[in-house]
Amino acid sequence: MFDVSDGLTQERRGPRPGGVDTRAALLDAAREVFVEHGYEGATMRAIAARADVDAAMVNHWFGSKEGLFAEAVIDVPFDLDGLVGRLLDGDVGRLGERIVRTFLTNCDTAGGGVFAALLRSGAGHTQANHHLHDFMITNILAPVLRAVGVDQPDFRAMLVATQVVGIAVVRYVARFDQFAATDIDRIVTAVAPTVQRYITGDIA
Amino acid sequence: MFDVSDGLTQERRGPRPGGVDTRAALLDAAREVFVEHGYEGATMRAIAARADVDAAMVNHWFGSKEGLFAEAVIDVPFDLDGLVGRLLDGDVGRLGERIVRTFLTNCDTAGGGVFAALLRSGAGHTQANHHLHDFMITNILAPVLRAVGVDQPDFRAMLVATQVVGIAVVRYVARFDQFAATDIDRIVTAVAPTVQRYITGDIA
Repeated sequence: MFDVSDGLTQERRGPRPGGVDTRAALLDAAREVFVEHGYEGATMRAIAARADVDAAMVNHWFGSKEGLFAEAVIDVPFDLDGLVGRLLDGDVGRLGERIVRTFLTNCDTAGGGVFAALLRSGAGHTQANHHLHDFMITNILAPVLRAVGVDQPDFRAMLVATQVVGIAVVRYVARFDQFAATDIDRIVTAVAPTVQRYITGDIA
Repeated sequence: MFDVSDGLTQERRGPRPGGVDTRAALLDAAREVFVEHGYEGATMRAIAARADVDAAMVNHWFGSKEGLFAEAVIDVPFDLDGLVGRLLDGDVGRLGERIVRTFLTNCDTAGGGVFAALLRSGAGHTQANHHLHDFMITNILAPVLRAVGVDQPDFRAMLVATQVVGIAVVRYVARFDQFAATDIDRIVTAVAPTVQRYITGDIA
């Protein structure tokens, strides 16, 4: 249960109808605003306005922009083990295809979502860069590459990351017209062989 | 010649020693701050402090952050025709390698420079995204691909952009440790075949 202050007036204790929903609405609004403006450009005021909530309530619940960023963007529940398992489940020769398709399908559903927020926030925000690295390399690509048992797993993971991150920037952040509207199958067909070569091919 | 106000005091007319240098120093400082913090995170105050110049002088010369961004990041003189010509000069089968090497060499020299500033500023700043698109696709990749005479030149240009942008983000913006320190030759060897396939290969 959460305390719900009604803003600048004296804080009232105890759960109130809609409290959890309001909190969830704030987290959604925060994620949207961080996606659109990045960490530095996002303001508590803009986030509160997006959720139609008094700005004081945002401070009450999350304490600071940093805290809100952590909860809205970084701590998004994510079934990492499940994801790594699904990527590894199948022919290694088609792992590149599974990575590209899984990434695009997840991101398209969320309009780029958390990933775009991390990329945009990476600007002046070292922590966002660490989380982007942890998310992509440490938690997903490095374990997958190690499980496959290739040489240079870390460098290969890094190469895969460059291609996947580049797609995300062009499609969700910079939103180059033609590429943002291209359907997933066409991108997978074109890009999967790249990622496959970075995983199992000759990279010298 | 430029007018040089000494800040908050009454403006004095007429050129003063060091005026041009101070202006150039301000543009350099602006570029650095935009690279580090992106458009939204950069402040006129921070830029003035970096150049060791009174903030009022920044307003005096550039009018607004938008004006300063345009002059420091967008209007950087760049020999586009020369670049396109050099990329096209040589075996088409090695065009991918020339693109990756040229891009990395230019960006490494400038620590990611203008390109990183555009990427970082793309966040909440539509104009930066337009300029990133114009810079990469309209001015460089699309003309090069058209000159080569391949099918689907626009989609191929977009694919090349995803790979090149991804390298820039991982190397200069997010600065993933291992990849930021990797030498250019190693990256070219690994990535050039990708870009080559996007240009002349089967992308279906």
